Amino acid sequence: MRPVDLIRKKRDGGEHSAQEISALIEAFTRGDMPDYQMSAWLMAVLWRGLSNAETAALTEAMMRSGSVLDLRELPGVKVDKHSTGGVGDKTSLILAPIVAAGGLTVPMISGRGLGHTGGTLDKLEAIPGFNVNLSAAQFVRVLRVAGCALIGQTAEIVPADKKMYALRDVTGTVESPSLICASIMSKKLAEGIDALVLDVKTGSGAFMKRPEEAEHLANMMVETGRRMGKKIAALITDMDQPLGRAVGNSLEVAECLEILGGARHPLSEDLRALSLDLSAWMFYLGARADSVETGRKLAEELLANGQALAKFRHFCRLQGADDPSCLPTANCTAPFIATSGGFITRIQCEQVGLASLVLGGGRNKQDDAIDPAVGLELRKKLGDAVKAGESVATAHYNDPARLPEALRLLREAYAIGPKPPGEERKLVKKII
Amino acid sequence: MRPVDLIRKKRDGGEHSAQEISALIEAFTRGDMPDYQMSAWLMAVLWRGLSNAETAALTEAMMRSGSVLDLRELPGVKVDKHSTGGVGDKTSLILAPIVAAGGLTVPMISGRGLGHTGGTLDKLEAIPGFNVNLSAAQFVRVLRVAGCALIGQTAEIVPADKKMYALRDVTGTVESPSLICASIMSKKLAEGIDALVLDVKTGSGAFMKRPEEAEHLANMMVETGRRMGKKIAALITDMDQPLGRAVGNSLEVAECLEILGGARHPLSEDLRALSLDLSAWMFYLGARADSVETGRKLAEELLANGQALAKFRHFCRLQGADDPSCLPTANCTAPFIATSGGFITRIQCEQVGLASLVLGGGRNKQDDAIDPAVGLELRKKLGDAVKAGESVATAHYNDPARLPEALRLLREAYAIGPKPPGEERKLVKKII
Repeated sequence: MRPVDLIRKKRDGGEHSAQEISALIEAFTRGDMPDYQMSAWLMAVLWRGLSNAETAALTEAMMRSGSVLDLRELPGVKVDKHSTGGVGDKTSLILAPIVAAGGLTVPMISGRGLGHTGGTLDKLEAIPGFNVNLSAAQFVRVLRVAGCALIGQTAEIVPADKKMYALRDVTGTVESPSLICASIMSKKLAEGIDALVLDVKTGSGAFMKRPEEAEHLANMMVETGRRMGKKIAALITDMDQPLGRAVGNSLEVAECLEILGGARHPLSEDLRALSLDLSAWMFYLGARADSVETGRKLAEELLANGQALAKFRHFCRLQGADDPSCLPTANCTAPFIATSGGFITRIQCEQVGLASLVLGGGRNKQDDAIDPAVGLELRKKLGDAVKAGESVATAHYNDPARLPEALRLLREAYAIGPKPPGEERKLVKKII
Repeated sequence: MRPVDLIRKKRDGGEHSAQEISALIEAFTRGDMPDYQMSAWLMAVLWRGLSNAETAALTEAMMRSGSVLDLRELPGVKVDKHSTGGVGDKTSLILAPIVAAGGLTVPMISGRGLGHTGGTLDKLEAIPGFNVNLSAAQFVRVLRVAGCALIGQTAEIVPADKKMYALRDVTGTVESPSLICASIMSKKLAEGIDALVLDVKTGSGAFMKRPEEAEHLANMMVETGRRMGKKIAALITDMDQPLGRAVGNSLEVAECLEILGGARHPLSEDLRALSLDLSAWMFYLGARADSVETGRKLAEELLANGQALAKFRHFCRLQGADDPSCLPTANCTAPFIATSGGFITRIQCEQVGLASLVLGGGRNKQDDAIDPAVGLELRKKLGDAVKAGESVATAHYNDPARLPEALRLLREAYAIGPKPPGEERKLVKKII
């Protein structure tokens, strides 16, 4: 079948065979199917959708477009976590050392931040010396010694996704749950994992604003993972306010180190709890614990006895960073002051992320440079009481010209009302 | 608005402003909007459709992508006919001289055949010396002297359509009534006409197999023409059997000359009647007749008194062909014999067109060469009685190796049953 016939088939609502999908992805990756045919097919997919079987076939075909890591020779079950992205979401830096300290292998390939959301690689690169660009061989070496390693996408892994995502971005074909699922899952499964925990965010700072959308995507990813023989679970979690209290790369690493070191801060409790929950699920799916509850206890133990922190320092050292406690700091700080008293009733998460971005902590385009030192430290979160004149957040910055826009965005983000918001917030909304 | 925003708007079911559509077509024609964005937009158009206002805006934007002929200095109303294409459809060669002989100007820019359908240009080029590649200035000169001229698409006229059609062909985005309408109407309106008669074919040999589809497209084209201030009408006509009795370029010109010369043949009566009907509508819309009936009488008169034939010879001479009666003939003929007796109950029109194509009379790809002499002469049409062993059609060919496949296709095309087909066939099914 020629590519045009496959486009017409999907356009007319037909279902592709696994063979058809793999031919399409192979032709596109080789360059035999031009971009203009792929973008027409992608739009037809947005229109007609993909069945679960088609989504699994697409995931597998994309995964096979490059090399798939073979980690069978490494000890322990290989387990990873993937988050759909949010503001202040830094659980990877906490749970990877916890789970590795618990005896599992965590081969984590992460992304960079774009727009209002942060990326794990940018956070790690705030640590002086930390190298995220390991070759596959170096990656396996760190995994063997430390049990976890965190690196960036390599050119050998899922080249089809890189090419396809660039096209989706400029042709209005990003917003398809099936395509999102295949993009995420192909990259995760190419890591050679046995089990995967998904953290699917929903709320004002998430890609999926409505819980139904998040749940739909989560179901699809779980189904795809199962079809490919993986242990998999998805947690639908809240992103109606930043996770923890730091937003900005260096500040976020510091917050993680604090938690790994056993300190507690009321505004970081959600981050700590979610990191423990996700670790618990990883232990459970990785057969290190016979229940999620046992897994959670194990995770808490590894935090309390310092083994998780030691593991963090260990893999940092193996990836080139001698002391993760030595983090760059910004030259200036300024408070964001409440002009009226009351309670924090809403935090527009996206605006908080953008405020950090305009200070230099994020990027608008893929090749923008990042200032690791800048960002925000929240002093109030949803439901907190606040007095007029009190500081709601602290901006850390190096370039004073960027401050006014960041403060303007924070004013947009925070709403203060006479009464605390009614509903009880649940951090984990549903487990699939 | 960036192209990607326009794609997303259409994808989400939004309606474009005329300005947005013209920006899109301009960017695409200039090469600023890459093919992969256009093909995604085209697929979104297939999905969501275009409103009548959007279709008119697209038609106008495409028309304005190149030069629009200004024929205001020429005498008489400028009127043209467009057919959506069929098998044996050669009415243009008959009605253009009739209508020009009646005092109107007929600036006809036509296409070539592709697949099972023939093209006016290929038929004209069967006449030795006939030049369809006139410049715009030469075209106007012939029009001024003869009142009609028949040429091919020039590079200056609607370049957006040429570029867009090539893309639609390979991205499964041909089958949108709005895109078909804009493609046809932009080219016709760029001719600088005041009035247009559409011959929208339906049946086994037509692009639109079902009458509803034909009617939908016809309504859209009429609405678009009206919005652009043109007099316009559409006839929905039968294409369940070839029109007339000749299929193949030289043979078709000969059939036209026969009709223009006043001869009558029972198997060519449908062709003669439709040519007169379309001429009548052109006279009526061109204000040369105060009713279609008067127009029809005028057309019959111009056939009977030889003025139409003289006009045909006149514009042929002006376009380089001294004697259109000297036509190439094929070296061999072979009958297609009925193996059983009865009545012709069905003619698969598409197979008849393909039979002529395989003899060398048509093209599969746009740059295939054509043998003008070959083709088919039908001896039986729908409802005709036939005896076993009688000839149903004659194949004219030069290459004996091509004959068996043509005969096989004819066997597929013709069905012979014990009773004549029940329903009375109407040549003109509806007028819009």
